[in-house]
Amino acid sequence: MTESAITTVNAGVTAPRGFLAGSAAAGLRTLSSNDDLALLFSEAPCVAAGLFTSSALRAAPVLLSQRNLADGKAQAVIANAGCANAYTGAEGLRDSEEMAHLAASRLRVADGDVLVASTGVTGHLLPMDKIRDALPSIALDRDGGERFARAIMTTDTVPKQAAATFTAGGREYRVGGCAKGSGMIHPNMATMLAFLTTDAPVEQAFLEKTLRRAAEVSFEMITVDGDSSPSDTIVILANGAAGGPALGEGVEGATQFREAVAQVCIELAKGMARDGEGATKLIEVKVSGAKSVADARAAARTVAGSPLVKSAVYGNDPNWGRVLAAVARSGAEAEESATSLFWQGVCVFQKGRMLSYDEEALSLATKSDEVRIRVDLGLGNGRAVAWGCDLTEEYVRINSEYTT
Amino acid sequence: MTESAITTVNAGVTAPRGFLAGSAAAGLRTLSSNDDLALLFSEAPCVAAGLFTSSALRAAPVLLSQRNLADGKAQAVIANAGCANAYTGAEGLRDSEEMAHLAASRLRVADGDVLVASTGVTGHLLPMDKIRDALPSIALDRDGGERFARAIMTTDTVPKQAAATFTAGGREYRVGGCAKGSGMIHPNMATMLAFLTTDAPVEQAFLEKTLRRAAEVSFEMITVDGDSSPSDTIVILANGAAGGPALGEGVEGATQFREAVAQVCIELAKGMARDGEGATKLIEVKVSGAKSVADARAAARTVAGSPLVKSAVYGNDPNWGRVLAAVARSGAEAEESATSLFWQGVCVFQKGRMLSYDEEALSLATKSDEVRIRVDLGLGNGRAVAWGCDLTEEYVRINSEYTT
Repeated sequence: MTESAITTVNAGVTAPRGFLAGSAAAGLRTLSSNDDLALLFSEAPCVAAGLFTSSALRAAPVLLSQRNLADGKAQAVIANAGCANAYTGAEGLRDSEEMAHLAASRLRVADGDVLVASTGVTGHLLPMDKIRDALPSIALDRDGGERFARAIMTTDTVPKQAAATFTAGGREYRVGGCAKGSGMIHPNMATMLAFLTTDAPVEQAFLEKTLRRAAEVSFEMITVDGDSSPSDTIVILANGAAGGPALGEGVEGATQFREAVAQVCIELAKGMARDGEGATKLIEVKVSGAKSVADARAAARTVAGSPLVKSAVYGNDPNWGRVLAAVARSGAEAEESATSLFWQGVCVFQKGRMLSYDEEALSLATKSDEVRIRVDLGLGNGRAVAWGCDLTEEYVRINSEYTT
Repeated sequence: MTESAITTVNAGVTAPRGFLAGSAAAGLRTLSSNDDLALLFSEAPCVAAGLFTSSALRAAPVLLSQRNLADGKAQAVIANAGCANAYTGAEGLRDSEEMAHLAASRLRVADGDVLVASTGVTGHLLPMDKIRDALPSIALDRDGGERFARAIMTTDTVPKQAAATFTAGGREYRVGGCAKGSGMIHPNMATMLAFLTTDAPVEQAFLEKTLRRAAEVSFEMITVDGDSSPSDTIVILANGAAGGPALGEGVEGATQFREAVAQVCIELAKGMARDGEGATKLIEVKVSGAKSVADARAAARTVAGSPLVKSAVYGNDPNWGRVLAAVARSGAEAEESATSLFWQGVCVFQKGRMLSYDEEALSLATKSDEVRIRVDLGLGNGRAVAWGCDLTEEYVRINSEYTT
């Protein structure tokens, strides 16, 4: 049984037993003096897995973290905001290596057990002296999850944290997580970082598979096409502090673990969509009746990513023709006479026929911080859900004034 | 020899001999009383070819025009703004058929020789009574090209017309054209209409191939991924009024004809990009050194379509890291150490190394109505050029207030 998300102050990466976190202000941010350097540490060695950007040019921290995850183990994460250390070549890689080394020395673990993540402007080298200076001042804490979540924020307006708990075989297991990333016209182009933790003991192959499946229904469903920034990073650390046998296919608790990880990832992904740059609304797009799951995913993501749909939602304009246009160009099979469309619960188009509806009332219903769009393609059993946000003048303001 | 574009008042669909055009105000527009119904007519029957939307749901006028072009012949075009007649099912198709019939009766040609194009809001039926009433008032004219170009405008701020002329075998041939379409974050999602005319006699198969090749280097290079709205339409009519043998592979003048059509299409496409909704700048993205032409095309289009690049250009912010991120996620092969990047002519990144440059001077240089970005991937000989425009608050305003 999967219980609902924990909503206490402890939600986040330190919700599971045995994880500590903290942060400091290293002065890496140009626009604020908020904390920008963060550390996550597990008291015990962890089984670990990661998913990284599919970009042809990967940032230095990604290259290093992939290398350090090759053995399926890790014990700590050092992360910073302000500078992504991307497009920085060999010098950038040396800086990421030094970050791992500094954290490893501080935490008395091997360099290879530290993962590194950086977010912020690209094309600039990290000011390593500031990181060297600030690292010793980070206090690690069982309640440090929220500080960690706040220190990795860039244009995010709120920290994104989630946690879930379940019991199996008389034991209570916890899954926690935090994320950042809020460029939302094409979320794939802003850096997304997500860190997950669990006190369940988990087999490495099963952990990796669980993470991939959870990402498919969460983080991937807030992207337009699975593309990514040079820095996108999702990692999960499992320290086994809850005890019991290692979870794997067929082991008691494995199914609940999979559900808990997916639940945490969906909550974080929705949080990212809702906090898209300049966003005022969350858009949820459900597609059913598709010929295949792949078709449903493509259609849902194309609608959620459509600037015209996003602009219409912002303007409380139930312009459902734009939804159909997005579905039709998504690559999903569609037939006008089989397609139905619901806007904020109201059926406006039924199997190819426009229905009459009260435009004013529907516009009023769209004045909500959650707008639900549902498309039934009427051709099969493929289903998917995607999330996005509205497109506002504020998005343009944020992104035209980023570095200068 | 291809001469430069004609810039007289006659540029446009009536630049070639034997074409007449005109327009009227039928009252289809909700926000203005400008002309919204347009007619294009050739005094002689034409060889014709068309390219249409790849959307899974095609609007009624597209279905009808494809049917009427099946024989490779046409003699007239009737077009309207204000209502796209899309997602209107069997009733919509009957309305498009009636539009063709009304034009055919007026012009004394067969119904099957009339092409139909509609642009505007989707999901509404055409007010056919207004079209019936207004059509007889259209005066056809050898100078009517600009009226035609203006009547099909939606959120366009200026009409887009172009023309080119060339001589071969002692004869002068003309190619003219006009276009509309200015939703530019993803131009594929706004309706694009383009009408081309020529007085050259042309073999049908060669005409079709010429149009497809010209579209590949023009209209397709202002789209993100070749996707399209339900109504996208590009047609070309060749009436042979210049005389001489029909142009085809190997015939004298065929190469110049191909160049002239491409030149007109590129000029129209750049005009559309420059007049993108809310745009203040044209962005030209040149990619060279790609492994293949397909890679170069993908990279150039992804950069030109990137909301983050577009926002940066708007803000006069030479944020070239966003260009690299777009290239890297485009699917094109790329290696950091082989990649060089020029922003407004200044090399800022050379074979994987950041160069120092005067940020203030480069920002100042970006304050121009044309911003040029060049990426050399250093891996091969693939080249491509794409065009886009900046992303502004005005885009959001236009698209959040479209129907309501």
